[in-house]
Amino acid sequence: MLSEVLKTLSGRRYQAMEQLKAFLRFPSVSAKSDHNAQTRACADWLAEQLRFAMLESSVMETRHPSGRAGHPVVVAKNRHQPGRPTVLVYGHYDVQPPEPLELWESPAFEPTIRKDASGHEAVFARGAVDDKGQVWCHVEAITAWQAHGGVPVNLTLLIEGEEEVGSESLASFMEAYKDELKADVCLISDTGLPDRNTPAITAGLRGLVYAEIILTGPDHDVHSGQYGGAIPNPANVLCQIIASMHDAQGRVTIPGFYDDVLHVSMEERNMLKTAEYDEAAFSRGVAIAFGSGEQGFNSAERVSIRPTLDVNGLTAGYQGEGAKTVIGSTARAKVSMRLVPDQDPHVIRASFERSVRARVPGNVKCEIKFFGEAWPVLTPVDSAAAKLAREAVERIWGRPPVFTRSGGTIPVVADIKRILGCDTLLVGFGLPDDRVHSPNEKFDVEMFHRGTDTAAALYEALGRLKSV
Amino acid sequence: MLSEVLKTLSGRRYQAMEQLKAFLRFPSVSAKSDHNAQTRACADWLAEQLRFAMLESSVMETRHPSGRAGHPVVVAKNRHQPGRPTVLVYGHYDVQPPEPLELWESPAFEPTIRKDASGHEAVFARGAVDDKGQVWCHVEAITAWQAHGGVPVNLTLLIEGEEEVGSESLASFMEAYKDELKADVCLISDTGLPDRNTPAITAGLRGLVYAEIILTGPDHDVHSGQYGGAIPNPANVLCQIIASMHDAQGRVTIPGFYDDVLHVSMEERNMLKTAEYDEAAFSRGVAIAFGSGEQGFNSAERVSIRPTLDVNGLTAGYQGEGAKTVIGSTARAKVSMRLVPDQDPHVIRASFERSVRARVPGNVKCEIKFFGEAWPVLTPVDSAAAKLAREAVERIWGRPPVFTRSGGTIPVVADIKRILGCDTLLVGFGLPDDRVHSPNEKFDVEMFHRGTDTAAALYEALGRLKSV
Repeated sequence: MLSEVLKTLSGRRYQAMEQLKAFLRFPSVSAKSDHNAQTRACADWLAEQLRFAMLESSVMETRHPSGRAGHPVVVAKNRHQPGRPTVLVYGHYDVQPPEPLELWESPAFEPTIRKDASGHEAVFARGAVDDKGQVWCHVEAITAWQAHGGVPVNLTLLIEGEEEVGSESLASFMEAYKDELKADVCLISDTGLPDRNTPAITAGLRGLVYAEIILTGPDHDVHSGQYGGAIPNPANVLCQIIASMHDAQGRVTIPGFYDDVLHVSMEERNMLKTAEYDEAAFSRGVAIAFGSGEQGFNSAERVSIRPTLDVNGLTAGYQGEGAKTVIGSTARAKVSMRLVPDQDPHVIRASFERSVRARVPGNVKCEIKFFGEAWPVLTPVDSAAAKLAREAVERIWGRPPVFTRSGGTIPVVADIKRILGCDTLLVGFGLPDDRVHSPNEKFDVEMFHRGTDTAAALYEALGRLKSV
Repeated sequence: MLSEVLKTLSGRRYQAMEQLKAFLRFPSVSAKSDHNAQTRACADWLAEQLRFAMLESSVMETRHPSGRAGHPVVVAKNRHQPGRPTVLVYGHYDVQPPEPLELWESPAFEPTIRKDASGHEAVFARGAVDDKGQVWCHVEAITAWQAHGGVPVNLTLLIEGEEEVGSESLASFMEAYKDELKADVCLISDTGLPDRNTPAITAGLRGLVYAEIILTGPDHDVHSGQYGGAIPNPANVLCQIIASMHDAQGRVTIPGFYDDVLHVSMEERNMLKTAEYDEAAFSRGVAIAFGSGEQGFNSAERVSIRPTLDVNGLTAGYQGEGAKTVIGSTARAKVSMRLVPDQDPHVIRASFERSVRARVPGNVKCEIKFFGEAWPVLTPVDSAAAKLAREAVERIWGRPPVFTRSGGTIPVVADIKRILGCDTLLVGFGLPDDRVHSPNEKFDVEMFHRGTDTAAALYEALGRLKSV
């Protein structure tokens, strides 16, 4: 049966890409409230497409913890049949802001197919691979299965609109619709592959604590000649605080930061170090001479099994052209920490806050804001579902998947386990150079089609899962 | 004769303020090329006013070292008579950018008279005290003298339009018009007083080196999950570099930074520490709990006889609302160093550049730009001109001036000495809380009038200077 479905898919490739392009034209930027109408239009369009794929589909409202309306969630189901396993497919239709716009070679919301730097055809657009393209792999696979009696599982699609802003409205939505969303396994395609020839199943995701430090020295911007040297300059103090957060070995100095980091076996570390991992390609991808970070680990380990602390933004004083001799009243830093199992975001957050405050001099005011937190997760690699997924992947790729850890965060994975009680399979199709969150984001055309085939095979394989 | 002039001035106070307000309405922001027409209109207006004061006055072109046209200079003279001393009065009609506009209580270019926080009437506008108001003290004094036979000196006014952008076109202008500008002494009112009851003559100015550090890590903004921990984050590296520029004692760590700092006698230090200097008022003026800086010095010393290194601006990554999990490709810092005699800006600049480059890791690119440099200066306090100035100030204020050092920089003072060969007298009327370069800049109304009287008295006193 799967081979028939794959044949159908192979005949629909042009059509599949055209539909993905339509999906990508919606500027569904969840961070921007002035895009709300377009974000909703995107959800409406997606729900309609899922109806064409013969699913029962609806656009459902959410509520943010603050009380305001959240972005809607698209929920779609086939007709569930007793005895079949239930698969929850999660994805998101919202995208990151496209800025800086001037760095896009073709406009962010006008999907364009052209060859990338390595000579492979790709579709360039914001959201191409994160996550619209990967959501579309599933929509297309489901559509193809319809011509052959439909997917052989009880299917529930949950496609949300707030992943890029921390999925903050989703937990209470899942609580409210717990019974409707109940499943044997969750399947997510929002991760990547080490390279175009190596399929992968992601076995872990990093968690996140995101903070903004706001320091105030003088109550107004002052002349650096009149005051320089005699008052605390919040920009200098901020630099001192941030510099003190790492030691000479590249380790984070926040007390207790590493206390709960799970030991990773040499076996897994060796797998990470060798599994088709190309250090030179990693550096080349971002045009740096060599990678660097915590001593004793290579780049593959640093972005997966090790926690980090990175500045995501700095703002202080005069930022225009040329010189202005001013000491700014305030200095701000956005700082995020990626966490690994079993670090607890609440514990890390509290220790971070204490560390920062302990370093602030008595004549500087300090405010710290926190944004979405997420738990790190490990997903089982030896469950029945994982074994079936492995078979499905091997069938399409001609080789078994490697098990990797992603450096990124999908906040909902921990919530799915906590609220719905099911494990997640992370099978994604992004390439390391897809420029996720950056200008000129792309999705490799071949990966798109192979991802679609893989999704079709996954449905076939998971049909053999025993329902609990 | 002076008492007659002072009587004339006392009858013209309303008029004097109205004319200052007209001067302040020109948005003569030298840093902004889109203000060029208004900057020139300001120069034209000023030249015309000086003609009303019976001076021969012209607007003269300048050329920037880069080859482009500079902002014009206003040069005005009375009829020079043999045997009289020649006084060069320098000032500037250009102003700092008014931003951030939203912090102004009344618009920056709509001069408004109201009471300040301490209950004294002041005129609020960009340039009120720096330097239009103080230039106008002289114009008004000259006007009043005209009713009594004119100022008793050979007068040359040189009012430039690029002080706030480093006076870069002025040196070659002075070279070209050396003979026309030749004088026995230069008089500048562009400094301040310790408080409203204490007149001051400024005996030293700090110099300046202003740099921008631009670090580049990855060649594009990247996802902090995908890359975080394994590539150099230019924002973190920038913070480390800046933090390392000071030691725990608040001293600058650049090699050789203090080598050429002139020893300041305990006598002068004691004068600085006690001369009406109010540490609590200093902190209150900028709403900090207490001053801080290099150990072993108080605030008065830190802003005058000690060199500094301050961040004037930071720019990196995402600066919008909320969270974006990005590692920015570049991070920038504007950093300025205030220098004291006899630090050489070229030597400091070179050592700064070496220090920064030595701290940049091999996988980060570093560009360093430098903006206007200025030499620190000491002006003689025991010259014949200084003694006459002292008498003039005492006549108006009823007490002799204190000799202070300004933390600020007037780049042209060193050039006047070098090119025209004459010393400068710095007699200014700004108060410490005048918010120079900040929103709500002001000039105290009483200081304006007393400054005008002092200018009139200075012309009388300097008339007794022997011409060389």
